[in-house]
Amino acid sequence: MKRFCLLALFASATAVARADEGMWLFNRPPAQQIKAAYGFELTPEWLDHVQKSAVRISTGGSGSLVSADGLVMTNHHVGSDKIAELSTKERDLLKDGFHARALGEELKCPNIEMDVLWTIEDVSAKVEAAVGTGMSNAQVAAARRAKLAEIESEAKQKAGKGFKCEIVTLWQGARYHLYTYKTWDDVRLVFAPEKGIGFFGGDADNFEYPRYCLDVCFFRIYEDGKPLKAERHLEWSPDGAGDGELVFVAGHPGRTERLNTWAHLEYMRDFQYPATMRALWRREVLLATFSGRGEDNRREAEDEYFGVQNSRKARTGIYAGLLDPTFMARKFRAELELRAAVAANPEWSAQWGDGWDLVAQAKKVQREMVVRFTALGGPGMGLGGDLWAKAATIVRWAEESGKPDGARLREYRSTAKSTLERGLYSEAPIHLDLEVERMASALQNMAELLGGGDPTVVRALAGKSVQARAEELVRGTKLADIAERKRLFEGGAAAVAESKDPLIQLARLLDPENRLQRKRFEEEVDPLEKEGYSKVAAARFAKEGEGLYPDATFTLRLSYGAIKGYEQEGKPVPPFTNFAGLYERGAARGNAYPFEVPASWMKAKSKLNPATPFNFVSTNDILGGNSGSPVINAKKQVVGLIFDGNIQSLVLGIGYDETQGRAVSVDSRGLAEALLKVYDASELHAELMAGKR
Amino acid sequence: MKRFCLLALFASATAVARADEGMWLFNRPPAQQIKAAYGFELTPEWLDHVQKSAVRISTGGSGSLVSADGLVMTNHHVGSDKIAELSTKERDLLKDGFHARALGEELKCPNIEMDVLWTIEDVSAKVEAAVGTGMSNAQVAAARRAKLAEIESEAKQKAGKGFKCEIVTLWQGARYHLYTYKTWDDVRLVFAPEKGIGFFGGDADNFEYPRYCLDVCFFRIYEDGKPLKAERHLEWSPDGAGDGELVFVAGHPGRTERLNTWAHLEYMRDFQYPATMRALWRREVLLATFSGRGEDNRREAEDEYFGVQNSRKARTGIYAGLLDPTFMARKFRAELELRAAVAANPEWSAQWGDGWDLVAQAKKVQREMVVRFTALGGPGMGLGGDLWAKAATIVRWAEESGKPDGARLREYRSTAKSTLERGLYSEAPIHLDLEVERMASALQNMAELLGGGDPTVVRALAGKSVQARAEELVRGTKLADIAERKRLFEGGAAAVAESKDPLIQLARLLDPENRLQRKRFEEEVDPLEKEGYSKVAAARFAKEGEGLYPDATFTLRLSYGAIKGYEQEGKPVPPFTNFAGLYERGAARGNAYPFEVPASWMKAKSKLNPATPFNFVSTNDILGGNSGSPVINAKKQVVGLIFDGNIQSLVLGIGYDETQGRAVSVDSRGLAEALLKVYDASELHAELMAGKR
Repeated sequence: MKRFCLLALFASATAVARADEGMWLFNRPPAQQIKAAYGFELTPEWLDHVQKSAVRISTGGSGSLVSADGLVMTNHHVGSDKIAELSTKERDLLKDGFHARALGEELKCPNIEMDVLWTIEDVSAKVEAAVGTGMSNAQVAAARRAKLAEIESEAKQKAGKGFKCEIVTLWQGARYHLYTYKTWDDVRLVFAPEKGIGFFGGDADNFEYPRYCLDVCFFRIYEDGKPLKAERHLEWSPDGAGDGELVFVAGHPGRTERLNTWAHLEYMRDFQYPATMRALWRREVLLATFSGRGEDNRREAEDEYFGVQNSRKARTGIYAGLLDPTFMARKFRAELELRAAVAANPEWSAQWGDGWDLVAQAKKVQREMVVRFTALGGPGMGLGGDLWAKAATIVRWAEESGKPDGARLREYRSTAKSTLERGLYSEAPIHLDLEVERMASALQNMAELLGGGDPTVVRALAGKSVQARAEELVRGTKLADIAERKRLFEGGAAAVAESKDPLIQLARLLDPENRLQRKRFEEEVDPLEKEGYSKVAAARFAKEGEGLYPDATFTLRLSYGAIKGYEQEGKPVPPFTNFAGLYERGAARGNAYPFEVPASWMKAKSKLNPATPFNFVSTNDILGGNSGSPVINAKKQVVGLIFDGNIQSLVLGIGYDETQGRAVSVDSRGLAEALLKVYDASELHAELMAGKR
Repeated sequence: MKRFCLLALFASATAVARADEGMWLFNRPPAQQIKAAYGFELTPEWLDHVQKSAVRISTGGSGSLVSADGLVMTNHHVGSDKIAELSTKERDLLKDGFHARALGEELKCPNIEMDVLWTIEDVSAKVEAAVGTGMSNAQVAAARRAKLAEIESEAKQKAGKGFKCEIVTLWQGARYHLYTYKTWDDVRLVFAPEKGIGFFGGDADNFEYPRYCLDVCFFRIYEDGKPLKAERHLEWSPDGAGDGELVFVAGHPGRTERLNTWAHLEYMRDFQYPATMRALWRREVLLATFSGRGEDNRREAEDEYFGVQNSRKARTGIYAGLLDPTFMARKFRAELELRAAVAANPEWSAQWGDGWDLVAQAKKVQREMVVRFTALGGPGMGLGGDLWAKAATIVRWAEESGKPDGARLREYRSTAKSTLERGLYSEAPIHLDLEVERMASALQNMAELLGGGDPTVVRALAGKSVQARAEELVRGTKLADIAERKRLFEGGAAAVAESKDPLIQLARLLDPENRLQRKRFEEEVDPLEKEGYSKVAAARFAKEGEGLYPDATFTLRLSYGAIKGYEQEGKPVPPFTNFAGLYERGAARGNAYPFEVPASWMKAKSKLNPATPFNFVSTNDILGGNSGSPVINAKKQVVGLIFDGNIQSLVLGIGYDETQGRAVSVDSRGLAEALLKVYDASELHAELMAGKR
């Protein structure tokens, strides 16, 4: 499924956030800026209400409570994993959609959590109090770690059942905030439209505008087996929002790297992005070819294919920014200014002056090792394919489970055992043809990156051609059988050592070299970079003060902006699309995939008002993780649903510029009308309008 | 258009050709091998008849005379360039096909030549007589060059009008043969089916089997304004050929590198192919994305997109062979054996012993420079796009035309002026959106390969983002105007120096550095490699004698083999497909592009015999350039028409192995029945059957 998950965005490093820039903390809201720009007064009550209506979804997106009976609105593409898991051979909910007309028909989702942020406490002073004078760097880090664990553990005990507590590291360690969430895991699917309208236009229209998508689905949170009596929820706006109107987005942007140093940006531009683009182009062509061979192949590879296309398109935008001399020059100047300020202050200089060099050194080592490490699957030894992933887990667990927790690889600590087991014993279907394709691709990729004569490549191929070896590995392994995976996982080192399974043997072959690479990364890259950035961040915080928003951390943020069109290639792009445009776009592309207007919409055409707003754009500063966030007006009412950024917003993620970059939303009016007239979902429509069932 | 042009194939280096391996010279036919394997006696008359019925087509394919009235049969994909050139906005001959029911309706093709090989003379002794004792390497090369020019020039004078003469360098210089051709340039299109059946299955089925393509078109050669009275032609077989039957292919395979040294193979495996695959994956995704944006885009990019897909699929097969340890070990052993034989013979050792090291040294230098040279467009400074190509030509001509011929870049000598002008003043349409895409792609590629901070990249981008710079270059240039190209080309250095055209200025910026790279290549790579291979070839020739066939040189060769199925993934693949299979394949894929059976075929379905053979496979050793070759039986009758090799034949191109590798042909029976019943081409059918109009 499509994921709007741009995990490496960053923007202008200039001191003061400009225009509608910023992903703001709810306990440090941009009240002054909003007042100045829009004349609107943010109140504590407003913030508290919105905060407690916003939902974080464990699958990696955002949502909002939109009724007092626990109804949660999010994107179709955020819920699509669960929708797929609830599908059966006979009932393809992704393709055909789903609609529970009564509570009893709602479908319980496996393995999902929804959280609502309840309280925030700044615990920075407590953490820093644990740091003594004269401590070494290592001692400081250890003291902080211990204190953080202590605070989190105490908070958990205090909060009790139904809550969870997390300390969020902000500004790379300049501040620590304790977040306490209400959390639920009984979540049921209420409504989803067909993917044909949820992702209308497919890859061609992805990250584009104008758009015509009903990228929505509804879940309901249950508590004690009954619909949640939500303390807060967002009302539905009867009128939507107009051109130029102030709108807010409350959601969970995943991760930004807006503080990245020049050396880090150069690394991204000259190493990371060229390599990432190559890998994505490669996978996209392989998956397209595999899919072209027949209908079964197409269905099996669909998810992965869309995911790759989505990543490719997102990264194309970011890479364009990295190659833009104007943007890069701005980043360069901003870094010079900050470093000059540090150099001019002897105390700052002594404390933080080497921050940039530490990052540069980390990137230098990474350049030396990244190709080989990538070819060997990176930290998780992820070569390709579900069966391989299970083999790698079994082989690593066999070794790690014999060590004390402190000496283990992080993801193999004893607390992680149940997570490992959940993945390992999953009953998700495994498609052998696709597995062969993935394994062949991984083996060939290894040869591409390391050369066909590399000893590791030679040993991995075991004297066979790539295709023959992939067939041998996938057709020969017994790991498609859950019982066999269980036997090996529980059998530990002895069972693994005895196994003649070809995938287990390959994992054992590659494991030692991968570990050496990982060790080097964890000793020579990661800590240097962390330490460097904590210094850079501290310097920036010292120079620019509390008026800054921190980098995104997949925690709740507030963004403000306005509904606003833009110009593209000299022509105006109006802020709203409407239903008429959907039918026109479909017809212009021959109603052929991915522009086929679904049958339900063709049938309902005469009932719909062609002028009803369907999608709109706004200047809000958002990114991946924000998918499914509510767009709300000054009265805290839902006027839209974030589902994408336009292609220019990817560049904008690097250097905020509202000239063209825009967030893309479903309009609340189009959404409501579609529920009523296309899907005949009158009871759901009524719940939204009334704010309760 | 699809090109079956695998320009870098090579096969087993073992001494004696095995099984049905070999692309044999007509003056050194494999008579003994055929006698031994099939009990058939090749006669001089047989060879002479077939030789004079085979046609070489200047667009890069093969064909055959199939009537006494100059009718030439070849592939749709060989003729498609001409078919496209003969199309107009109102009449899309590629899409809809073409059928001239009378001579007067046949369409004259621009810019095409068809040649028939008339005589072959071994002039090796004459050439070698020009080499004196005590000459240096450079003197030897110069003496040979002069002698070759003298022989060719004398032969041309002697042959007279309507003939052309070419000396073919065989076995890398171990032998020189003088080829004299009859040649014609009045060629007219007679018949072409719709592309939908010519390339049924598109990229998905390309290089696959079973297949269902009518990849044929017919031209007619005219002489003095009338249909050629052909001295020889091939009869049509009334019965086709059966499973296991001996069949011959007479055609023009383009180029093999079966002699490649181990160092060269390693270079291909670890540098050339990974880089080529990356470039193709990259272009394929960019073109797919561009095409997805709308119908105009799709049409504009169609040709290039198919070309890239075809190259990618072909090279995937070759790369798989390079990564196959078994094949590579065989190549390694063969090289060791040959080198051991040379080392054991002091005279050979002195003459040829350093051949392998020379090639290795050439490849070492190439490794150092290839990335940068490629980023700068390689020898032709070809970055991307038609407009850019014209700018590069104008800028280089302005400099080169001021030098004496001997000092110029090869393709800018005074004799080449008319060729340059033909390209430069071509009226082929230029699509600005596609040009922007190509230019952006080239600029980004430069940054990907050299890094965004590289001084050349910085200067090429001129402070703009990749997209903005590409727009500026393409929208800003006046080179879409033929008159402006003419003005600059004829104005020479002065006009170019004054030009403010952004593309001209970019070409001037990049030219000096590209020249430096090219100079290095021409001094440190190319001559070393040529010298090395002439020694390796001489050694092999000395050791293994005249029983060998030479590497392919886009000259006439004879291949023999049998119609024969094979096994794939444990299942038998029968040698023949039939009409019923076409309709089944279409239906199985929803009759959706590229599996849409054309309307003409749907209409004719009831009239066709479903059991009529449509396509078949045989063990003939063929490759790109062979497209359009006739498949003939022992009685010199046409039983089929080569149009492809299966995916395993690409690996087979590297190391001949008839286990799975097969040539793919249209069956003469299916072809004839389709002409009659689908296309109502009774007069064309009658001409084939009677061998005359």
